[in-house]
Amino acid sequence: MTHTIGGTNYCDVRDHTEALAAPLGPEDQVVQSMPDCSPTKWHRAHTTWFFEEFVLGPHADRYQVVDPDHRYLFNSYYEAVGARQPRPRRGMITRPTVQEVGDYRCRVDDSMVALLDRGIGAEVATLVELGLHHEQQHQELLLMDAKHLLFQNPLRPAYVAAGPTAEPSTGVATPSAASGWIHDDGGLTEIGHDGTDFSYDNEGPRHTTFLQPFAVADRLVTCGEWLAFMDDDGYRRADLWLSDGWATVNAEGWDAPMYWDTTASGAWELFTLGGCRPVDPAEPVVHVSYYEADAYARWAGHRLPTEDEWEVVARDRWSPPTRAGRPAPHPSAAGTDGSDPLQFSGEAWQWTSSAYLPYPGFRTAPGAVGEYNGKFMVNQHVLRGGCCATPRGHGRPTYRNFFPPASRWEFGGVRLADDA
Amino acid sequence: MTHTIGGTNYCDVRDHTEALAAPLGPEDQVVQSMPDCSPTKWHRAHTTWFFEEFVLGPHADRYQVVDPDHRYLFNSYYEAVGARQPRPRRGMITRPTVQEVGDYRCRVDDSMVALLDRGIGAEVATLVELGLHHEQQHQELLLMDAKHLLFQNPLRPAYVAAGPTAEPSTGVATPSAASGWIHDDGGLTEIGHDGTDFSYDNEGPRHTTFLQPFAVADRLVTCGEWLAFMDDDGYRRADLWLSDGWATVNAEGWDAPMYWDTTASGAWELFTLGGCRPVDPAEPVVHVSYYEADAYARWAGHRLPTEDEWEVVARDRWSPPTRAGRPAPHPSAAGTDGSDPLQFSGEAWQWTSSAYLPYPGFRTAPGAVGEYNGKFMVNQHVLRGGCCATPRGHGRPTYRNFFPPASRWEFGGVRLADDA
Amino acid sequence: MTHTIGGTNYCDVRDHTEALAAPLGPEDQVVQSMPDCSPTKWHRAHTTWFFEEFVLGPHADRYQVVDPDHRYLFNSYYEAVGARQPRPRRGMITRPTVQEVGDYRCRVDDSMVALLDRGIGAEVATLVELGLHHEQQHQELLLMDAKHLLFQNPLRPAYVAAGPTAEPSTGVATPSAASGWIHDDGGLTEIGHDGTDFSYDNEGPRHTTFLQPFAVADRLVTCGEWLAFMDDDGYRRADLWLSDGWATVNAEGWDAPMYWDTTASGAWELFTLGGCRPVDPAEPVVHVSYYEADAYARWAGHRLPTEDEWEVVARDRWSPPTRAGRPAPHPSAAGTDGSDPLQFSGEAWQWTSSAYLPYPGFRTAPGAVGEYNGKFMVNQHVLRGGCCATPRGHGRPTYRNFFPPASRWEFGGVRLADDA
Amino acid sequence: MTHTIGGTNYCDVRDHTEALAAPLGPEDQVVQSMPDCSPTKWHRAHTTWFFEEFVLGPHADRYQVVDPDHRYLFNSYYEAVGARQPRPRRGMITRPTVQEVGDYRCRVDDSMVALLDRGIGAEVATLVELGLHHEQQHQELLLMDAKHLLFQNPLRPAYVAAGPTAEPSTGVATPSAASGWIHDDGGLTEIGHDGTDFSYDNEGPRHTTFLQPFAVADRLVTCGEWLAFMDDDGYRRADLWLSDGWATVNAEGWDAPMYWDTTASGAWELFTLGGCRPVDPAEPVVHVSYYEADAYARWAGHRLPTEDEWEVVARDRWSPPTRAGRPAPHPSAAGTDGSDPLQFSGEAWQWTSSAYLPYPGFRTAPGAVGEYNGKFMVNQHVLRGGCCATPRGHGRPTYRNFFPPASRWEFGGVRLADDA
Repeated sequence: MTHTIGGTNYCDVRDHTEALAAPLGPEDQVVQSMPDCSPTKWHRAHTTWFFEEFVLGPHADRYQVVDPDHRYLFNSYYEAVGARQPRPRRGMITRPTVQEVGDYRCRVDDSMVALLDRGIGAEVATLVELGLHHEQQHQELLLMDAKHLLFQNPLRPAYVAAGPTAEPSTGVATPSAASGWIHDDGGLTEIGHDGTDFSYDNEGPRHTTFLQPFAVADRLVTCGEWLAFMDDDGYRRADLWLSDGWATVNAEGWDAPMYWDTTASGAWELFTLGGCRPVDPAEPVVHVSYYEADAYARWAGHRLPTEDEWEVVARDRWSPPTRAGRPAPHPSAAGTDGSDPLQFSGEAWQWTSSAYLPYPGFRTAPGAVGEYNGKFMVNQHVLRGGCCATPRGHGRPTYRNFFPPASRWEFGGVRLADDA
Repeated sequence: MTHTIGGTNYCDVRDHTEALAAPLGPEDQVVQSMPDCSPTKWHRAHTTWFFEEFVLGPHADRYQVVDPDHRYLFNSYYEAVGARQPRPRRGMITRPTVQEVGDYRCRVDDSMVALLDRGIGAEVATLVELGLHHEQQHQELLLMDAKHLLFQNPLRPAYVAAGPTAEPSTGVATPSAASGWIHDDGGLTEIGHDGTDFSYDNEGPRHTTFLQPFAVADRLVTCGEWLAFMDDDGYRRADLWLSDGWATVNAEGWDAPMYWDTTASGAWELFTLGGCRPVDPAEPVVHVSYYEADAYARWAGHRLPTEDEWEVVARDRWSPPTRAGRPAPHPSAAGTDGSDPLQFSGEAWQWTSSAYLPYPGFRTAPGAVGEYNGKFMVNQHVLRGGCCATPRGHGRPTYRNFFPPASRWEFGGVRLADDA
Repeated sequence: MTHTIGGTNYCDVRDHTEALAAPLGPEDQVVQSMPDCSPTKWHRAHTTWFFEEFVLGPHADRYQVVDPDHRYLFNSYYEAVGARQPRPRRGMITRPTVQEVGDYRCRVDDSMVALLDRGIGAEVATLVELGLHHEQQHQELLLMDAKHLLFQNPLRPAYVAAGPTAEPSTGVATPSAASGWIHDDGGLTEIGHDGTDFSYDNEGPRHTTFLQPFAVADRLVTCGEWLAFMDDDGYRRADLWLSDGWATVNAEGWDAPMYWDTTASGAWELFTLGGCRPVDPAEPVVHVSYYEADAYARWAGHRLPTEDEWEVVARDRWSPPTRAGRPAPHPSAAGTDGSDPLQFSGEAWQWTSSAYLPYPGFRTAPGAVGEYNGKFMVNQHVLRGGCCATPRGHGRPTYRNFFPPASRWEFGGVRLADDA
Repeated sequence: MTHTIGGTNYCDVRDHTEALAAPLGPEDQVVQSMPDCSPTKWHRAHTTWFFEEFVLGPHADRYQVVDPDHRYLFNSYYEAVGARQPRPRRGMITRPTVQEVGDYRCRVDDSMVALLDRGIGAEVATLVELGLHHEQQHQELLLMDAKHLLFQNPLRPAYVAAGPTAEPSTGVATPSAASGWIHDDGGLTEIGHDGTDFSYDNEGPRHTTFLQPFAVADRLVTCGEWLAFMDDDGYRRADLWLSDGWATVNAEGWDAPMYWDTTASGAWELFTLGGCRPVDPAEPVVHVSYYEADAYARWAGHRLPTEDEWEVVARDRWSPPTRAGRPAPHPSAAGTDGSDPLQFSGEAWQWTSSAYLPYPGFRTAPGAVGEYNGKFMVNQHVLRGGCCATPRGHGRPTYRNFFPPASRWEFGGVRLADDA
């Protein structure tokens, strides 16, 4: 009878997706701005198909799929499920319409609620829980992709009206004076999720590792510090960059983080989900690539943390945005209630120097669900933490996000580290 | 007080555009399926901007543009007007919305009607007339581009419900028995528009030319004949093809005209604006490139006509779709009333062997309007005639359509010719 | 017993190729600098294979090919002959070596001389004559390609030591004062080769055409005039350019003819086969594309001639570089003996506004030799005349050279024309 | 007076490079077969320039560089040294010639020998030692690149005459019966070079790490086993592959290791430096990418070793090809004397699952030499061991080779591992 699985309510998650899509019209929901992005409509349909394919189809009694074409149109990358619409061409699918996708969501929700009402066993509960966390990931992607799309428009339209709640600056005082280092003696430690509540497969197995003594900064690199890097020719000095990074800087013409632009008066401003606004020197820098994060750290005389170092320090200081409490002024303002002074969650995903690889003993699950994480373990770096677009309750200290080193459209920022 | 310029009614043309867009939802109207295509919404806005930029701005008293951003967003290629949204990225502009573009059209129409009501001089009338013919061209492009977009969808959605009026097969009896040649003795003749009513600048100056004796087929090549070409390995024999054409066939994997597909049973079917239907062997083949038209003609032992040859033969036999008469069952069914037995208009644009070049004595007009045709006179071939998507009354025997030799998304077909 | 066919001596032509290759070492002879270019070694082998494939194989008694692999390696584009090394990868073939290609040439020459000594009939003579003219074309390509290759080297090595004979400036007085127009009344005229001596198939059939009255300049556009075009922002004014040309200018960053470069002092210099030297304002501009030629003509208030206009004027004033007379100081100094005051031959190939298309009545010959010219009749423009790299005796007023409109590595220049 | 630094003789290393180049003619030495490869001539000149730039210029008294252009032409990637010939265009430089590069080598060798004869201090000795190991790396690259170039030629020319010594099969008995696992209990261990003799900077600092218990195979995967993988549709089953790997397999059309080809009879043969020969099922597979190695391991039910696991097992069993002893039958036959039964060195570089990242505490050296390794630490995987093209004495158990995961032209093979 309950619709809550592992502490997450099915209808809450599903409704939140719809709330995030609501400010976007049919035109906004159908266009794909680059191959890595997906249309809003596609996110809404794909997360729905996930429940249909992996829960309702195998586990609901005599379930009839809403439309057999959806398997082709809305499968993301599950090779075991069969052929699918090529990713770079998701934006070509103008039909089913936005309205029809909404209807699809309703019909699947009805079936899911009926299934939950009848009661489900542990195996199905595991799949539903995975489906909900999967949908939360797509909620963040939906915002990332909407931001990217709107930025392609020279009119720079806002996703929501500008205000204090849409990608706010931190509001904390300029942290330069107060910043410092969190020291750790290293040694043998356990890394990875302990398995008592939900996690993705890539967070385990929990395993022993050995760390040298190290220190991690107690806050993120700020925009003010990034401006100093830029002023010191940070984007024009080959000695600061990895070779592939330097090639990318020159090929792409990067001279600032993504979504930064100079105004007529020469000042820098940011494009946010709330529209354009001036850069706040005190706020954490976001939308930088691994290449930039690495170059900045070298310029600053430090380095990036490994994902193990990050986890060791963050797990005792984890202060996620509160789930309960006052309703958020807008769904996009997830992580902004000021309860995270060390900025381990809610401000920016934090690049680590660790390549995204399997933990010792990791094996992918059999079947399509086993494609969820394991097959992406090459050519990417791990980010830890969470950002303003991460749904409340979705993050945890063992969470391993990952993107290619040149990627910038995610909310990626920088926390420095160093040897002890 | 009249809204009719040179026989064309302003409101009729403008309304026809809206009627053509009506079957397309907001999702359909915003996506761009390839760089050569434009979104429906863009066509609707661009044709409106044309009147604002070239008629209302310079000629209406104290005219205020609806939105100064439109000049950037909806200028197509007029360098003299200034910077503009890059053509391959027209599909990134999700706002203004479809609704807002509709409002834009209404506001410009109000101003145009007011201007026409006050009375206009000859110079302005010339610009309005150009704007109306320009909009008619975009009506055809709108249908071409909508067809291309819908074809990207594996569901193959129809623009309008399938029926006898959407890209009908000709309905004439299989023409193979009756077909023959129209002979002409050549000699000195005049080519080009005589200037008594509207034409584009590229149709003149009218000039003398000398033709060898020749013959032109009295009908178009049919799908049945094209199937014979395919059966005879037409797409796999290098000796039939121009070198660039052969490279294109192999690079693109062409083995049939565009929009042809094999069904599960192995038969060929066509995608049309009315959805998929079987190939009718008696109907003219369309959606073939110049390369294919040229290869077919070589295979058939003949050649393509020059544009001069085509014009000489067609001008005495021109039988355009009647303007008056019963209302068309649907706006897309322009050229289908059977009054064109020789198929010079209304069935397919007909590739000629003539490169698109200026006529002797041609000079472009000064200013932005001079960019209309002249600057495209390289790397293209001339097509003559008209097709089912061409608005009634838009064509004439001197009309010079043009596309690059590899282009297939226009309704291009084949009429054979030969030396006498 | 004679080795002279149609006035051309077999051994002279073959030796001239070897003389042109002599200044190039094995390293220079093997590298391919772009897909349109071929290695020197390949030119030497391909022209040899042509005689083997089309003359010796079919017509010499019990002829054994030197190496059966040569058919694959050295066929250029004859689809009828079979598969071949892809053109863009001709530079990957480091073996057979330069020395082995020299040996190949000797062995084929021995067989050819033996065949000629035995006496040949008319059919074979026609093929030998074609092979010799074919080899002369490759002599010009060899120089074009060597120049392009050497220009890739930042050291700018010369093909031959700089001197008065390697791509000399014309030596004529600055022609600005003396220049004028050659007027023609137009009317009916015959165009094309009359067939009494050798011509390529694309020069016929000779046919009647009608021309409007016109005028053609009595000299080529000079570098001094081109500098004025550049100074007047010729490369930065969209209104002067064809649309495809403007896109090319911007994509390629063109701001001067090919092989022009600015020195440290800001002056312009040319890279020639003799190395770098200052631009001479009096010399004809060369290495400009059709797009540039067309833009220049528009800037100058004139136009380019059609190929018919060019032929009508040039055929009565044709003054080719003398064949006999003093030996050329160097093989590359073909057309420089000053006997061509109107510059119809020997200075630069001259872009015409005519697309490269078949003449009325043209049919390709059956078999592989029919691929020689006909299959390239699309996407190119005709150039007339000849240049310093054209072998003596190779040109004639009906000769139709052709290149794509963006091509610049050939010696292409500009002669203006206008309506009467 | 000695020319031996750290056990490596200057003249021996330099002579070995020349011996490796000797079978290649000028044509072979100048062509670049892909952007990752360099011409033989460039390798010979670049290694020479390294001594000139980093040893002679700063440390030889009043040294005059042989040619100041060499800094531009033969700098590989040292940003601190200045601009340089772009890597993908190294093959455009036909001059200086092969002969001139030989002269350059001689002149620099004379200066180096004179410097060594005068005696050098520790700092210079470190640079000379680095230069010699650098040249040994290029010796391997020279062979890799020559093999790649010769394979582009459809004639498949051999680098040296086929024989038992050029890329021999192992000669050991089919190892399937005898193969087994080397078990290790894991725990705390030291990884990295101990610094007592030469190593690259990326092999340190030596540091503590913790390993889970594991096992590593006692031999490499054989061609026979690889054929079983192919027969089991290994290249056509998405479930075996990393996502990026699967995309690469399909984009590149891989269906076998690089340099494998099917003969007319359907059997597989290998292209080697000694020409083509049949695949020997008992020999180790080489020229597979990381993607293939990873997919094979998954198919076999195991995994690849980490670089730490590899090092722990290999360092106690290291049995490099003997330096002394009978002269190698040919310079390319470096690692083939059968003294390496566990195949840790001399047979194939062995892909590890470890991304190429800095060891804890690693910092790059200041200046240009600091660019040697550090700036490549992203987007690559580590390979350990050595191959038939690795010079004798060049390898060691801590040596970290690295290539991008799609790379196949290096001699990369597979050793399996598994959890205990």
